[in-house]
Amino acid sequence: MPEGRPVNVPDDGLTTRQRRQRPLVVVHTGDGKGKSTAAFGLALRGWNQGWRIGVFQFVKSAKWRVGEQTVLERLGRLHEETGEGGPVEWHKMGSGWSWARKQGDAEDHAAAAAEGWAEIKRRLAEETHDLLVLDEFTYPMAWGWVDAEDVVRTLAARPGHQHVVITGRRADPRLVAAADLVTDMTKVRHPMDAGQKGQRGIEW
Amino acid sequence: MPEGRPVNVPDDGLTTRQRRQRPLVVVHTGDGKGKSTAAFGLALRGWNQGWRIGVFQFVKSAKWRVGEQTVLERLGRLHEETGEGGPVEWHKMGSGWSWARKQGDAEDHAAAAAEGWAEIKRRLAEETHDLLVLDEFTYPMAWGWVDAEDVVRTLAARPGHQHVVITGRRADPRLVAAADLVTDMTKVRHPMDAGQKGQRGIEW
Repeated sequence: MPEGRPVNVPDDGLTTRQRRQRPLVVVHTGDGKGKSTAAFGLALRGWNQGWRIGVFQFVKSAKWRVGEQTVLERLGRLHEETGEGGPVEWHKMGSGWSWARKQGDAEDHAAAAAEGWAEIKRRLAEETHDLLVLDEFTYPMAWGWVDAEDVVRTLAARPGHQHVVITGRRADPRLVAAADLVTDMTKVRHPMDAGQKGQRGIEW
Repeated sequence: MPEGRPVNVPDDGLTTRQRRQRPLVVVHTGDGKGKSTAAFGLALRGWNQGWRIGVFQFVKSAKWRVGEQTVLERLGRLHEETGEGGPVEWHKMGSGWSWARKQGDAEDHAAAAAEGWAEIKRRLAEETHDLLVLDEFTYPMAWGWVDAEDVVRTLAARPGHQHVVITGRRADPRLVAAADLVTDMTKVRHPMDAGQKGQRGIEW
């Protein structure tokens, strides 16, 4: 929701409309819940605008499937059937990236992460999507599998009008500095503190 | 995503499964972005589980319509057509609650908020929904339009298995203390700081 007027109006030669339309880099970080959920919520919102949505999950497990994947892929098919909303692609690292012809060594997470980022760079250059969600992408950066400098440079130079949302704990300070919108999801209380494990529908 | 094992296993006589299935009160508070977006993301996830979803927006404007409303209502119609997912109801205070037969005085926000809460209490008693999102419900509590003690008591005594997600800044400390899962969305950087206004697809 709009929450008031801008505090400072910059002297950048842009009209309010041009500034308003600027594509954003959004980062959801912190130890609390809601980082990915809010990112998938943005994908939902973007779908409703007719945007071409691309989700790239840098997760460990091949078997993992969140409810949002089912729903967003269903909305993608709805787009194909009725023209409502926009097209949706959802790719996961764990099972081998779905665009890759041959499956790589699933155990080599560093190589898989680097391969994922290389494909995302190609798509950014080709302007394949209007909104890209790079879920848990902070971890391969933190572990040195993907060069944070390269990410920041690539995002700064991306052509056209592509929004990029990156989630995960311990976001690189250079990424935080380069982002337009950064939210830190801070844990105040979590059911696991009271001995409760995750449950279907809430955690996935 | 599951993020590890519980730190403490409580001596409450419940099995892990019983504890796991416990219905939750979730609070998204703080000054940052993502409170409502993550709540609607949970609704999406719940829809995918076949849950009966009820969203109640305690917002000021009658005209406001977020993209999530369009998409979740579309998913509700998909449920009616194909049986996929669950049913969805979305109610807004601004235009007069849609269940109310006669429209009240739209200017009397205090009365409208109290009326909204009274209906939610009835629905909780009747177990109408499996997941209720009370969007921006912290404000009528903060302003004394809805009694926070009554909210905490009602939530503690709710029957069956109903998850309740409450969003908004400045959550009442009694609500925070009573909730199972609390996340504070902390603003690190926001485009409005750089003179940018909200934009379609990102902010709504």
